[in-house]
Amino acid sequence: MKKLMNSPDAFVDEMLAGLVAAHPSLAQEGRVIRRTGGTKKGKVGIVSGGGSGHLPLFTGYVGDGLLDACAIGDVFAGPSVDSCIQAIRAADGGAGVLRLYGNYGGDRMNFDLAGEMVEMDSIQTTTVLGTDDIASAAPEDSAKRRGVAGIIYAYKIAGAKADTGAGLAEVTATAQAAVGACRTIGVALSPCQIPGAAKPTFELGADEIEMGMGIHGEPGIWRDKLRPADEIADEMVRRLLADPVAHGSDRVSVLVNSLGATPLEELFIIYRRAATLLKKEGLAIVRPLVGHYVTSMEMAGLSISIIRLDAEREKLLAAPCACPFWRV
Amino acid sequence: MKKLMNSPDAFVDEMLAGLVAAHPSLAQEGRVIRRTGGTKKGKVGIVSGGGSGHLPLFTGYVGDGLLDACAIGDVFAGPSVDSCIQAIRAADGGAGVLRLYGNYGGDRMNFDLAGEMVEMDSIQTTTVLGTDDIASAAPEDSAKRRGVAGIIYAYKIAGAKADTGAGLAEVTATAQAAVGACRTIGVALSPCQIPGAAKPTFELGADEIEMGMGIHGEPGIWRDKLRPADEIADEMVRRLLADPVAHGSDRVSVLVNSLGATPLEELFIIYRRAATLLKKEGLAIVRPLVGHYVTSMEMAGLSISIIRLDAEREKLLAAPCACPFWRV
Repeated sequence: MKKLMNSPDAFVDEMLAGLVAAHPSLAQEGRVIRRTGGTKKGKVGIVSGGGSGHLPLFTGYVGDGLLDACAIGDVFAGPSVDSCIQAIRAADGGAGVLRLYGNYGGDRMNFDLAGEMVEMDSIQTTTVLGTDDIASAAPEDSAKRRGVAGIIYAYKIAGAKADTGAGLAEVTATAQAAVGACRTIGVALSPCQIPGAAKPTFELGADEIEMGMGIHGEPGIWRDKLRPADEIADEMVRRLLADPVAHGSDRVSVLVNSLGATPLEELFIIYRRAATLLKKEGLAIVRPLVGHYVTSMEMAGLSISIIRLDAEREKLLAAPCACPFWRV
Repeated sequence: MKKLMNSPDAFVDEMLAGLVAAHPSLAQEGRVIRRTGGTKKGKVGIVSGGGSGHLPLFTGYVGDGLLDACAIGDVFAGPSVDSCIQAIRAADGGAGVLRLYGNYGGDRMNFDLAGEMVEMDSIQTTTVLGTDDIASAAPEDSAKRRGVAGIIYAYKIAGAKADTGAGLAEVTATAQAAVGACRTIGVALSPCQIPGAAKPTFELGADEIEMGMGIHGEPGIWRDKLRPADEIADEMVRRLLADPVAHGSDRVSVLVNSLGATPLEELFIIYRRAATLLKKEGLAIVRPLVGHYVTSMEMAGLSISIIRLDAEREKLLAAPCACPFWRV
């Protein structure tokens, strides 16, 4: 797989250097991206992080009304404990820091250790884990689910809540409720390749797709021949509605997200069908998102996320924010 | 090549249906996308258009402070004369309409014919053609150059100018000057495939790239082995500076644009190098754009555009606007 890079070792650092060069609102300190302006005194800080290779996740969501800082690792590898500590310190405005990231073992271990370390600086922290991927564990094991694209809703909602001046416990509860109201399912068409790796992260036949595959190529629900877009959308929506977060005439937002190489044209073909089905169920769609929000470099495929909006979440989702990759 | 679609024949119409379903600011009438709110009475209208398969170009740039309407064709095929007529009528606010689109034979023929037809409605039209691709013709034949990603700068600048209440001649002159101050060069890593076609638009070896290739696979300058990113960026910037639009301490904007499958990570690695080189020349970079702005579906590769900003263009580039794919 051809990549425009100088060397696998330089991939992440040169990518971060370009990110902050293009976006003066972001500042880089090693493997941490923070808001150039820092965290407002008295505002709850929000940190996230994880492996590289998912832009605009994670670092692209640092900005006013969203994240305060991110710790970032090598491609598909969690950030170091030191980076997590540094990100928490950068996010601290004196009112505590919420650690809001995807449910992956390595990330948890390092963010947890970092949380213990910053206690010595008297920085209080809490944790909310993204667990939206319904293909990664059964409903009764929902706490074991991985976090995928849906976490960006939690970023926006928690970020807006923190901007209201709410305290750490309240911001944490709002983020946890947002995660609890959100579900995602993905479908993979072709793999990506980690810079320097000898081969792609997985293999799929020239006419095969995999329903439910994770963003690092974690095994999904089934692998079979490519089907018409509407059949695929129907199954994805059916699976989301079978693990329900919304009923009746609830208001929801929907995210149709490219995993990388899948173009906007195909996202809109899928969105058109998914929106029709959800409306037929009686649900009202508010502020849908269609685009490249959480990717795996050049992987082809997409995910559909749905989040139930109560009155507060709808208001927080609509609140002004400023970061390079979120459009209100 | 796997595509999430229902049938090649339905590809464009279903894509447009999804686009307007996701973005209520856009309205669809057949193969025309226009602003739901219509064109303000007395404002100069701006229309564009071309073949499908380049999202967010063209239709994604319809919105306040940008385009008023777009005529859109099948994938990589120009819009029909009827669609062009319909788009011009939709864009008309009584003050004339600028036709602003890329320099491709079929598009010119149909937009020109449409212009003659709407004269009978007493709609005055003018034309400005995007001609930014320096690889498509020599400087002495610059009027023969194709339009590629740089045209989005002309959209933004002409759209903001029209919003000031300027007349048709003035908006046209501003758009023409923006095109004249802009240059682009691309590099291709892998092809895309037209829905329903038996094979990709071109072939490239597993380790080959093509410098200067057009967005539909038009032949470029050279084809050779993949090189380190900095070497590629150096050559692209060198070629842009050899066909100069900016000198000394001029202020410029720079667009590093994915042709589709090339991820943000690689765009930022290239941007980092390009920005360093341009700053070393003494140029000041203002409002850089890095992302998916003008694509060819799942084609891998990128383009770099540079536009010189005089005081007026810089102000117009920064003016507020509202469309799904432009972030101020």
